[in-house]
Formats: sequence, structure tokens, C-alpha cells
Amino acid sequence: MKITVYNEFNIHHKSGKILEAYPNGIHGSLKKLFEKNGHEIRTYTLETINDITLDVLKDTDVLVWWGHMNHNDVKDEVVDMIVNQVNLGMGFIALHSSHLSKPLKRLLGTPCTLQWREMDENERLWVVNPTHPIAKGLPSYIDIPHDEMYGEPFAIPTPDELVFIGWFKGGNVFRSGCCYNRGYGKVFYFQPGHETNPVYEIPEIKKILLNAIEWAKPTTRLEYLDCPNATNPLEKI
Amino acid sequence: MKITVYNEFNIHHKSGKILEAYPNGIHGSLKKLFEKNGHEIRTYTLETINDITLDVLKDTDVLVWWGHMNHNDVKDEVVDMIVNQVNLGMGFIALHSSHLSKPLKRLLGTPCTLQWREMDENERLWVVNPTHPIAKGLPSYIDIPHDEMYGEPFAIPTPDELVFIGWFKGGNVFRSGCCYNRGYGKVFYFQPGHETNPVYEIPEIKKILLNAIEWAKPTTRLEYLDCPNATNPLEKI
Amino acid sequence: MKITVYNEFNIHHKSGKILEAYPNGIHGSLKKLFEKNGHEIRTYTLETINDITLDVLKDTDVLVWWGHMNHNDVKDEVVDMIVNQVNLGMGFIALHSSHLSKPLKRLLGTPCTLQWREMDENERLWVVNPTHPIAKGLPSYIDIPHDEMYGEPFAIPTPDELVFIGWFKGGNVFRSGCCYNRGYGKVFYFQPGHETNPVYEIPEIKKILLNAIEWAKPTTRLEYLDCPNATNPLEKI
Amino acid sequence: MKITVYNEFNIHHKSGKILEAYPNGIHGSLKKLFEKNGHEIRTYTLETINDITLDVLKDTDVLVWWGHMNHNDVKDEVVDMIVNQVNLGMGFIALHSSHLSKPLKRLLGTPCTLQWREMDENERLWVVNPTHPIAKGLPSYIDIPHDEMYGEPFAIPTPDELVFIGWFKGGNVFRSGCCYNRGYGKVFYFQPGHETNPVYEIPEIKKILLNAIEWAKPTTRLEYLDCPNATNPLEKI
Repeated sequence: MKITVYNEFNIHHKSGKILEAYPNGIHGSLKKLFEKNGHEIRTYTLETINDITLDVLKDTDVLVWWGHMNHNDVKDEVVDMIVNQVNLGMGFIALHSSHLSKPLKRLLGTPCTLQWREMDENERLWVVNPTHPIAKGLPSYIDIPHDEMYGEPFAIPTPDELVFIGWFKGGNVFRSGCCYNRGYGKVFYFQPGHETNPVYEIPEIKKILLNAIEWAKPTTRLEYLDCPNATNPLEKI
Repeated sequence: MKITVYNEFNIHHKSGKILEAYPNGIHGSLKKLFEKNGHEIRTYTLETINDITLDVLKDTDVLVWWGHMNHNDVKDEVVDMIVNQVNLGMGFIALHSSHLSKPLKRLLGTPCTLQWREMDENERLWVVNPTHPIAKGLPSYIDIPHDEMYGEPFAIPTPDELVFIGWFKGGNVFRSGCCYNRGYGKVFYFQPGHETNPVYEIPEIKKILLNAIEWAKPTTRLEYLDCPNATNPLEKI
Repeated sequence: MKITVYNEFNIHHKSGKILEAYPNGIHGSLKKLFEKNGHEIRTYTLETINDITLDVLKDTDVLVWWGHMNHNDVKDEVVDMIVNQVNLGMGFIALHSSHLSKPLKRLLGTPCTLQWREMDENERLWVVNPTHPIAKGLPSYIDIPHDEMYGEPFAIPTPDELVFIGWFKGGNVFRSGCCYNRGYGKVFYFQPGHETNPVYEIPEIKKILLNAIEWAKPTTRLEYLDCPNATNPLEKI
Repeated sequence: MKITVYNEFNIHHKSGKILEAYPNGIHGSLKKLFEKNGHEIRTYTLETINDITLDVLKDTDVLVWWGHMNHNDVKDEVVDMIVNQVNLGMGFIALHSSHLSKPLKRLLGTPCTLQWREMDENERLWVVNPTHPIAKGLPSYIDIPHDEMYGEPFAIPTPDELVFIGWFKGGNVFRSGCCYNRGYGKVFYFQPGHETNPVYEIPEIKKILLNAIEWAKPTTRLEYLDCPNATNPLEKI
């Protein structure tokens, strides 16, 4: 598969706790994971995302997105291309703080607001749809030692399939793994992954990410979706 | 209820067959229907829609939208306000060719493409969810003598509730009545209503429109949806 | 409304901790609550449930069910009548350990298994569908000081609407409020309510129960659902 | 895959029009189709179905069911085993008049009533979910020259996924391909296939059947589903 990974990777990611958690950036960790599993990877960061071309998106099976503070720095033209390509078949996986990313909000039609808390608290991810391809090979729950809390109410459309519910030590719950169909494409929102906690290095989380790109890969990739005039009726009118 | 009706009402609506079908415009017919049933109505057309204010939208329980050839003449700022108000509780009903309207596409996240045919053919609207509030008091099907055909595949997300399926004489079917929840608001797409056929004057269709605004009215109307920092955990961490 | 309440009320309910929690039985508490709100109540217990008649069920708007150890003592003929009446429009609310009751399992088609723990632990019930009629007037969460833990995986069909997710102190989550449509009837499963904890005396829980019967009341009540031979086609074949 | 096919094959199937349509019985046609595609097939008819053993069901990946006039001659013990095995992972495909079969009604919890007409009318099957695995490789619609009409209202739960909508020459529509998840198993109801019309010999219909068994095959096959007492909490209470 051809996977394109976007990681914001702004100035704050290049030092301190975030650099410690992800010495090569979140995109570096994801690149390594996906490459190890035989996929072809392109990576983008804030500095390059607005230069992404339609050709690259057309050549992408699944786009994986991690953004946070710079959502508004992604240009609307890029977002339009992404939303369009998803509807034509490209998979889209939005990670953690990408709940507020422009592409996800545009695909879901809702503000995707939630409540949050940064106290490095324990999250326990429960599988509520054990036969779903994204849950393949997982135990009934996964312990994430430290993560940011994201709590309900989460302003999203009812997921077409709900895969995970997150339990947080501090007393909150969250719909942490949500699947949507949009046109010919599949969309997965996955909540874990605060930038100061190396969540994407946890083996079971890696498995989820690999399952997710497998699930999200296109079955059909269209060139366009139009509104044809079906001039000749199939039956006499 | 306070209902705001938008009808494109461009130059083509002011003469010939369309004027014959709707002597006072589609908005005129809807205004009369809703007023008769005790609602307060504001109407907008292409000439005025870009002047609609946030205050008007905040004071609107349900926005009913009929557009066709001038979707792109509605400004993005207006669309942003509408999408936002729906998520805060305002109902939104998109009629017929409004499947391609900017607000509907933004709320659903899909291109809403379909196939179509203008041959004044007979449509039969079947109720597939007889206990749904929008189907209240209806017979098991409604005959629409002449309407434009809209046919599957219809590029929409799976409706939260599917109320009607349309049968067309020329051999097509369509998911003609689709309900969605978006944030605190409700969205209903209703397919019948080609501008040259006075479909909205059919008694059973009037009943559907009245049921739909009743169903779509806000239960809660928020001022804003934000992402609060839940600093104090509910449990010891 | 005419509400019929079934509470198993077996020998264990008539002494000790259960009697302390519910001096008049769970059915006594529910009867009081519903009567206070203007509804007409009939109550049944294990000793009488197998004598319930079709006439009583036909005269019931919503049947509220609390069972636990004696699920198998309810006769299949009674269960058949209940399932049938739900499909003809009667509301059905299954409380707590009624997840394994015959009527619920028959209506859902799944074994409704889960994991459980009796340690009087704290449950926090989060509203994940704030505009749902059953959540009307509720805060964003409700604290239940002591209840039995019911945990995922919960072997149910994906709810048509998910209203509550429960957080448990001991580390589990649960889909605690699940809505289903079955034929012309509505079904609500609500998890809280262990017999030794007077959960149904908590004001917010009472509000949920009142909202639930309101939501579940029939819009249409049929005499029967059959398979008619539509001999005369609507169109020439 | 190991496929078990049940075809009622009562006395009426052994002469006249039905024998003409299916010289080896519907089960004969399905056996041939599935065997040709590398699957291992067992077949049952009315005379043998009540002798089916738990071992056979446990050794079955997908059970394909065609019944009509003798639904009540299938013993409840057999139905119990089937419903149980579906929840443990076995796929179940109910064809045509099996909408009223005991296993389907038990899995869905509804009476599955509909309206019908035997006039050998033309059905056109529209794909409304083109990325669904069951629609893989299909054109946008399939013409079935002659079939029994099955029309809405169809008393089923809202499908987890709706794949096909049927258009009938006589003026009706039908949700003709409906997917459900039940426990660890998948259920597909497929409407075409009146016994006097050799519908299952149409190439595109064969493709659908092959896609359907592929989709319905177990991902996990459990021995049992129970309600464990999770005595040791994961967190301090």
C-alpha cells in the first residue's frame, strides 16, 4: 500500500518532552512502522503540507493525519482535495488532536468538540466490536499508561461502526475508535496519541494502526463522481 | 416555530412553466403552508440570501432550503454560519435539487451525486419507517404524478434514519427521505419537488413538510460548542 | 399512559439488603414513581407473570422489566406474546440484569452476555447523545454511588441509538443505555439498578425512567402484522 | 470454506415449474455454484434438517437457507442451535421466502412481514452501497427478468448495512439486500429467488451469492459466550 503520513511537527515537536517521546517525530515513528510492514511511505509536515499535489493524493491509498495547533495553517485548497479524494476512495485516518483538523471536520460535518485534560493519566481502551477488522488480534482491552484525556460529549455523527471506548482514570469515557464511510472512502478517527507520550510505540497500538490502514484501503478508486443525466429511461414512461 | 425558507427563485422561476407551477414561487407556497399552521415565516431568495444575518439564523428554529442552479452564488461565510447553527441546534431541511447545495454537502461530508432525468415521470414514495415522526399520518405510499427522477447511486453517508424510498416509472429507485443528526441539530433531505411540477401543493407532501419541521425543531439551542479543559479530574489520578 | 411493571421479586428480595434498598420491592418504587407522574400502573412478580393475559399486554403502553435469577421461569408463551406486542407497538424497557431476560434476548437476537462484578463500586453515567429524548434535562453525567459493574464486551446488536456510556471505578466501561426499534415498538435497555443499591431512587435516574417511558410509548398500535398478497399491481406489468 | 445449504425441497419442488427452474433443486444449483468455487458443501432438505447436529453446525462456516411453506416444520431445538452458532461466529444467509424462517426471525427479533405478488414481474436490483464487499464487481443494477414481488413495508430492524434496493415493474420497492451483525456472526438477507424462476442461475446473482458467503465467513469462531464474574477489578475501588 501507499501511505501518506502528515505530522504537524511544529517547533514544539523539535525539543523537550515531545522530541523525547518521538525522536524522529510522530511521522518518523509511523513511517518506520508502516515501512517495516511492506508499505511505501511519503511524509509531510507543516512546512510541506500545503505543497502536496493532487497527483500525490491520487497515488495515496491511505492518508494518516496528526495535527494539533496549526490546523488553520493547512490551506482550504488542500483540504478540498483531501475531502474529494476520500469520497473517490482514499482512506483517511485522523489521529488524536486531529479531531479538530479541517479534513475531519469537513468529512463529518460536525465541530468534533470534546473535553480534555493533560495529566498523563492512564487510559484503558476497550474493544466493543470484537469482530471488526480494526480490532483483529487484539485482547479485550489495551492499557495505555499515560495519555491525554479526551472525554464525552464528543460532537460527532453517530459512527457507522464504533470499535473502541476509552476509560480514563480521572473519571471520563470516550468513543475512541470511530469508523465512517464517506462516498467510496473510509474514515477512521482514533483518539490515543498525545505528543508527549510515545503511545504509537506500544505494540497493541501499532497493531491497531496496521489494522486501520488495511481496513481503510480503497476497494475502488474513482476518477470522479458526477451527476449523469440518465436520458434514456430503463422502462417506458 | 420560526421557520426561514430559502428559495433560489432565479430568473427562470419568474416565467413559463415554473411560474405556472408556483405562481408565488416555491417560497410563496411554503410560506403559505407554514403560516396556515401557525408558524412565523421569513423568506429569502438568491437576491437576499447573502445578506442573511447571524441574528436571523439564531432566531430560526428550522431553515428550509430549495436551491438548484445558483448553489455557488451562496457565499461561504453564509454557509459557515448555517453549518454552525445546525450544530448548535437549528433544524435544516434540504429539498430536491438542494442535494448539491453547499450547506447540505458540508453537513454530510459527501458530494451527494446521483443520476437524474427530467421526463415528468410518475414517482411513488414508499414509507419504509412507518413509526418515524416524519411519516406520521401517512398512507403506505404517496403517488406523485409528475416529478424529476433522482436515482441511485446517491453519494451520501448512510442515513441515521431512512424514511422514504422512491419508485420511478422509468425504472429507478432512490433514498428519497433521509434523516441525519449533526451536533445538536437535525437534518432532513427530501427528494421530491422539481420546480416545474407543483409537488409541494400535494396534500400528503404538505403533511410531510409539516411533520419534517416539527421533527427538526431544536430540543436544545446552544450558544457555542467548545473544547473545555476539564482541569479537575472527577477521580484521583 | 398505561405502564406494566414486572419485578421478579423472588424470595431473596423479601429480606436483608434488598428489602432494605427497596422496602416495597423494585416494582413498588417504580409504581410510586410512575403513578406520581400521572400514569396508570399494573405490577407483576414472578408469582403472577405467567398469568399475564394478552388483553393486559394489549392495554399496556410500555412494559418495564426487571428480572435476574428466574429468567427461565417465565414461560415461552408469555415471552411470545410480549415480543409480538412490542412489534405491534408496545414499548419495552429492560432494566439491569434483564439483559439476560428472555424477552430482551428474543427482541435483540443475541445472548447479551457481558462481564460483571459486585463490589458496590461507583458508576458514572455519561450522556453521549445529549439531544436524545431519554437524555432530556440531564446533566452531562450522573454519579451513581454504588452499583454492580457491567462491563464490555456486551454481546448486543449495534444500538439504533446509544444514549449512555457507563464508567466504572474498577476500570470498565459499558454501553449503559441502548435504544432499538423492533417493528412498531421501541426497546430501551438501561444498565443501572443492582437490587441491593437503591439506584432507582436517585432523582436523575428517576428522570431517565420517566423520559424512557415517554420515548417508548406507542405512536401506532397495530392489531396484527401480516403478509398481504398485493394481487393488483399498481402499475401495468 | 465449509458451506451448509438448506433447501426446503418439499413435494412441490419435485415436479412442474419448480423442477423445471431447478432440475436438481435450489440446493443442487447452489451446491454446484459453491463447489465450482472451491468450497466444501453439505446439503439438507426438509426431510433431513431436523437431524442436523451441533457438530455439523460447528463445522459450518456459512449456513445458506431457503425455506418457504414448511418453516414451522423446523424444530425449535434446531433453530436454537443455529441462532447460537451464528452468535458464536457462523455466517447465515437467508434467501427469499426465508424472511419468515424461524432462524431469521429469531436473529432479527421482528416478524419480517412484507407484501408480495406472484406475477413473474421484472425486478431491477439497484446497488446502493457500491463499496460493500457483497457488491464487489457488480454493475450499478441487475435486471432479473422474472421474480416474485416483495414490497415494503418490510418489518425488519434497520439493517447495519443496506446493499440493495429492489425496483419492481408493478410499482413497488424493497430493501432487497440487508446485512446484520449478531454477536460474532454475520447475517445477510437477500430477497431475489422465487422457486419458479431460475434466479440463482443468473451470473450476477451467482456473483452476489459468492460475495455474500465470503463476507459472512467467520473471523473468529467461539466455543461459547458467557458472563464472567470479573472478580478482580483492574483499578482500586
